[in-house]
Amino acid sequence: MKIICSKENLLEGINIVQKAVSSKTTLPILEGILIEAGDRVKLTSNDLEIGIECYVEADVREQGAIVLNARMFGEIIRRFPDAEVLIEVRENNNVVIECENSRFEIRGLDAEGFPALPTIEKKDGIKISQGLLKDMIRQTIFAVSTDENRPMLTGSLFEYKDGKFTIVSIDGYRLAMRCFEPEEGKETESAERKLVIPGKTLNEIAKILQQVDDELYIYAAGNQVLFDMGNCIVTSRLLEGEYLNYMSIFPKDHETKVTVNTKDLLSCFERASLVITGEERRYPVNLDITEEKMIITANTEAGNVREELRTDMEGNLLEISFYHRFFIEALRAIDNEMIDIYFTTSLGPCTIKPLQGNDFAYLILPIRR
Amino acid sequence: MKIICSKENLLEGINIVQKAVSSKTTLPILEGILIEAGDRVKLTSNDLEIGIECYVEADVREQGAIVLNARMFGEIIRRFPDAEVLIEVRENNNVVIECENSRFEIRGLDAEGFPALPTIEKKDGIKISQGLLKDMIRQTIFAVSTDENRPMLTGSLFEYKDGKFTIVSIDGYRLAMRCFEPEEGKETESAERKLVIPGKTLNEIAKILQQVDDELYIYAAGNQVLFDMGNCIVTSRLLEGEYLNYMSIFPKDHETKVTVNTKDLLSCFERASLVITGEERRYPVNLDITEEKMIITANTEAGNVREELRTDMEGNLLEISFYHRFFIEALRAIDNEMIDIYFTTSLGPCTIKPLQGNDFAYLILPIRR
Repeated sequence: MKIICSKENLLEGINIVQKAVSSKTTLPILEGILIEAGDRVKLTSNDLEIGIECYVEADVREQGAIVLNARMFGEIIRRFPDAEVLIEVRENNNVVIECENSRFEIRGLDAEGFPALPTIEKKDGIKISQGLLKDMIRQTIFAVSTDENRPMLTGSLFEYKDGKFTIVSIDGYRLAMRCFEPEEGKETESAERKLVIPGKTLNEIAKILQQVDDELYIYAAGNQVLFDMGNCIVTSRLLEGEYLNYMSIFPKDHETKVTVNTKDLLSCFERASLVITGEERRYPVNLDITEEKMIITANTEAGNVREELRTDMEGNLLEISFYHRFFIEALRAIDNEMIDIYFTTSLGPCTIKPLQGNDFAYLILPIRR
Repeated sequence: MKIICSKENLLEGINIVQKAVSSKTTLPILEGILIEAGDRVKLTSNDLEIGIECYVEADVREQGAIVLNARMFGEIIRRFPDAEVLIEVRENNNVVIECENSRFEIRGLDAEGFPALPTIEKKDGIKISQGLLKDMIRQTIFAVSTDENRPMLTGSLFEYKDGKFTIVSIDGYRLAMRCFEPEEGKETESAERKLVIPGKTLNEIAKILQQVDDELYIYAAGNQVLFDMGNCIVTSRLLEGEYLNYMSIFPKDHETKVTVNTKDLLSCFERASLVITGEERRYPVNLDITEEKMIITANTEAGNVREELRTDMEGNLLEISFYHRFFIEALRAIDNEMIDIYFTTSLGPCTIKPLQGNDFAYLILPIRR
């Protein structure tokens, strides 16, 4: 193998595939990046959960393949000046890497030993812009469960139905939902699909996605999913089983509705949480909802805090308490300036929604005072 | 005690004094900030090695003093909106902190229990600009020893002599020296002084110092030193004993002199260090100094690297090896574009200097190949 490639292009590819390189493994080959030079040059990483392939523009002088330690390879390229880089495989998998007056010789591993990524047919894809998917993941991923006793909840549901695309995360105490309905007139695809994608995969995908309008396609087959960003492809296993029927969790009606500024409410919760140190779950943040304002309090051994927030309220007065982190994480995920919060009783879930439309819904269970 | 103060001013003061709050202590009072309201408001922290006092503009309604937990106090003020903050001490050291619609009540500690800072007479100070001192510390602190068996070397020497101010750090294998000589005509003070200031103190001082021309004064008395920045005062103990006679360490003459671009040489060393992983000291970086270029190599089990760098050379050809980190840290500290490196023999120290003047000197011992 012999290729010539700009430092910039190579580094961009390495930075992407490095996200699926194993950091804790006893198999040295999983700490590596597979470089394959055919008609084009492809970098591949695979930690056996997630695989990433990335095409890099390069001049292929001699076809071939090699695996290089990802950390070492990345550091070498990163430290090179902005110039052309030559990579050449010599005898015994010795690899020469040259750039201007620098010359490295490091040992590679045989490409044969690198675990192949699953092949997934690119058929019936869900199409969505990169930036939008990045936002939708950010706005739901925090509610993915970490409880391995309920394995289906350690992933997010991707649902595609009647042209509407929805991501849902549930951890047993709260739910985060984000929808996207393409405007009318845009092409919609008919096939209905439900995929449950591991939280770990979504974390890595969200890091790779750029805040741009470029489209990507999501394909699934068997227990595998593929995110196709053009030059870069991420594959991951899917979680197998039935996801919760999330629509049945939302309360049908409400007793109290409060309209409030998102950032102001977030600040109140953040300040209230300051006195909740140590065993945080023991202490709730209390809301007293009156006609003109919401009074937010917390009382712990560390101290007391009391916040007043002007609100618009409809319905019954209410006293209700929450675990502060659930509210803070939902409020931080919301970009809208104003929100509506729907309450049932002091023991029933509350739902945070936008003033108009159904773009998102955050459901949070209260705790007893 | 009752004071009213802008959030901004208060937070600025807290951020400074927080640097001398103990993080690991069994004495809760050392985790606190002392607030004293007399004619002015003063914040004080003291971890028994370093003490910081900071004056904050405030409206004193009632004189008094209290100690508040630094972490909690800092977080509360940080989370407040940009507005006026009221701090009032009630019965039993309960402290009310209010800002707009937020109200905290936390427990304070009696100010009586807070350890007093040493008093140092402000006499015969060394005057220097904040930005310059910040630079001088940055350019020498990395060579302070961490070896407690040679306690004097765990600090830097501050020498003031004939109007010239010098900072020196030595760790047994290398030396970093930075000088400042005020231009002629500027007032010079006559008293000669040698202070050895602990590395930990210098680290904190460097963080507090701003990149500005404002002057500060350094005063010393007994085994204490005081840095007076006007609104903010840092006190620290001094190391007691005789510092090495550093001038005697520099070689009197040289056999080889190389003139080289600082950043280029740094890049070569940084790349060469990439193959030196694990037990790094075992593997040297080798320099082959020829008439037109320097060849920099490293060979380890991880791989080989070879760098070529064009240089101007006078004197004897030379092969010499170094521990990479000593060169990298010295080169990173140098702001000059070009440097001269003076070599004696392959076993004698080399000295890095500016092309003109004597603003700095870095001396590094070689290692055997």
